[in-house]
Amino acid sequence: MSETKLSQDELKKLVGYKSIDDYVESGMVVGLGTGSTAYFAVERLGQKLASGELEDIVAIPTSVRTKEQAESLGIPLVTLDTHSKLDVAIDGADEVDPDLNLVKGGGGALLREKMVEVCADKFIVIVDESKLTDALGPGFPVPVEITPFCHEHTMRLVENLPSVQGKCEAVLRMGSSSNNQIDGDEIAVTDNGNYIVDLHFKEPITPADAPVMASEIKNTVGVVDHGFFCNMSTAVIIAGSDGISVKEAK
Amino acid sequence: MSETKLSQDELKKLVGYKSIDDYVESGMVVGLGTGSTAYFAVERLGQKLASGELEDIVAIPTSVRTKEQAESLGIPLVTLDTHSKLDVAIDGADEVDPDLNLVKGGGGALLREKMVEVCADKFIVIVDESKLTDALGPGFPVPVEITPFCHEHTMRLVENLPSVQGKCEAVLRMGSSSNNQIDGDEIAVTDNGNYIVDLHFKEPITPADAPVMASEIKNTVGVVDHGFFCNMSTAVIIAGSDGISVKEAK
Repeated sequence: MSETKLSQDELKKLVGYKSIDDYVESGMVVGLGTGSTAYFAVERLGQKLASGELEDIVAIPTSVRTKEQAESLGIPLVTLDTHSKLDVAIDGADEVDPDLNLVKGGGGALLREKMVEVCADKFIVIVDESKLTDALGPGFPVPVEITPFCHEHTMRLVENLPSVQGKCEAVLRMGSSSNNQIDGDEIAVTDNGNYIVDLHFKEPITPADAPVMASEIKNTVGVVDHGFFCNMSTAVIIAGSDGISVKEAK
Repeated sequence: MSETKLSQDELKKLVGYKSIDDYVESGMVVGLGTGSTAYFAVERLGQKLASGELEDIVAIPTSVRTKEQAESLGIPLVTLDTHSKLDVAIDGADEVDPDLNLVKGGGGALLREKMVEVCADKFIVIVDESKLTDALGPGFPVPVEITPFCHEHTMRLVENLPSVQGKCEAVLRMGSSSNNQIDGDEIAVTDNGNYIVDLHFKEPITPADAPVMASEIKNTVGVVDHGFFCNMSTAVIIAGSDGISVKEAK
């Protein structure tokens, strides 16, 4: 393994598989994330249920795509309406800081992902090392889900919050309503019928500042939720060129 | 006046007119509330603009109904999208506690009302004395606007918040989507496409507890906003059987 460089996909598979192998036991309620890394976690869960190595599992998918993959593998699915408490949730992230604060939501599904993952006893994040950063912000815009009514006003409110002011540009996400693509000439609409504002930070957000900013944004009238996932991660499994490593929350 | 008892409508008219007479000056941006008491404030503003006693006013209505009334009176209207800062907003309330915390939103328009009223330098509340209470809660259910996705789960989360647990029953508001009536056999949908959960409290909410509860509810994933209006009122103008009185915020 020291001789042969693993491909990006092989690395994603390693962390996806490891998350199931290390954190999922028979009898659990499991949250399944969305994206190219979470794909491999779902695949592994399906394998282990098919082989009988795991049994009596029910899973809650965070998207239609994950639901379809899980169904194709015969993974029994439930929803938050019947199961409000999860043993573990596994998902990728767009950025991870040294305190394991995350930014998520490039795909626009941040609210459903957060609804599931905040209810898990353990939240396991699986990423490749390119997602690690000293400070959230400049590397990836922070999405904020807002109600459509007077959205220009709400964008201004968010941009002018004490912790945010002068540090970012707020850009309304455009796209096609049907597939949430980032480019397009209509305003993108989330599955919940809301709009997304992407906060493009010019300055880094320190790990201490991220929860403050997250709280101010969520407490703004007109804001539904945002892509900061602070104080939620139990562990981050990282695929790097040197192999797999795990960072646990302090 | 000590001889003749005023009717409910005459009392509402007195406080509605007084709110305009005492708090609105030429050149202001004014938020206009909704309901049978706010109706008279809008009427008075129209009169004073027509007579020339007030000029250079623009107003932001909190509902379609108020918008139509204001238009019929020739009141110039704008929106939060062009005016994020209001000089004064005037509206009714469903309940008012001794700290001037309010419960609002029986009509389901709480989010739009709060968006407007939180941006006003002064927020003037106009009520009859039946709306005054020692403690919010048992007299009037507290509405919470939530996203439709897995709403049963979100209802459970709200009911089980530390400050709320054991104190109330959460009831999903039913009604017709078209007119937001409280009775009906479909789930009522707000103007923003969300659902309303009414929290029916068995125990009184102390003035000190209301802001704590408000904060925990707003910080729940899946909650858009709620009908607590805490630390927002500048003054409450009260129509009582003995006449008009004013309570100002400490």
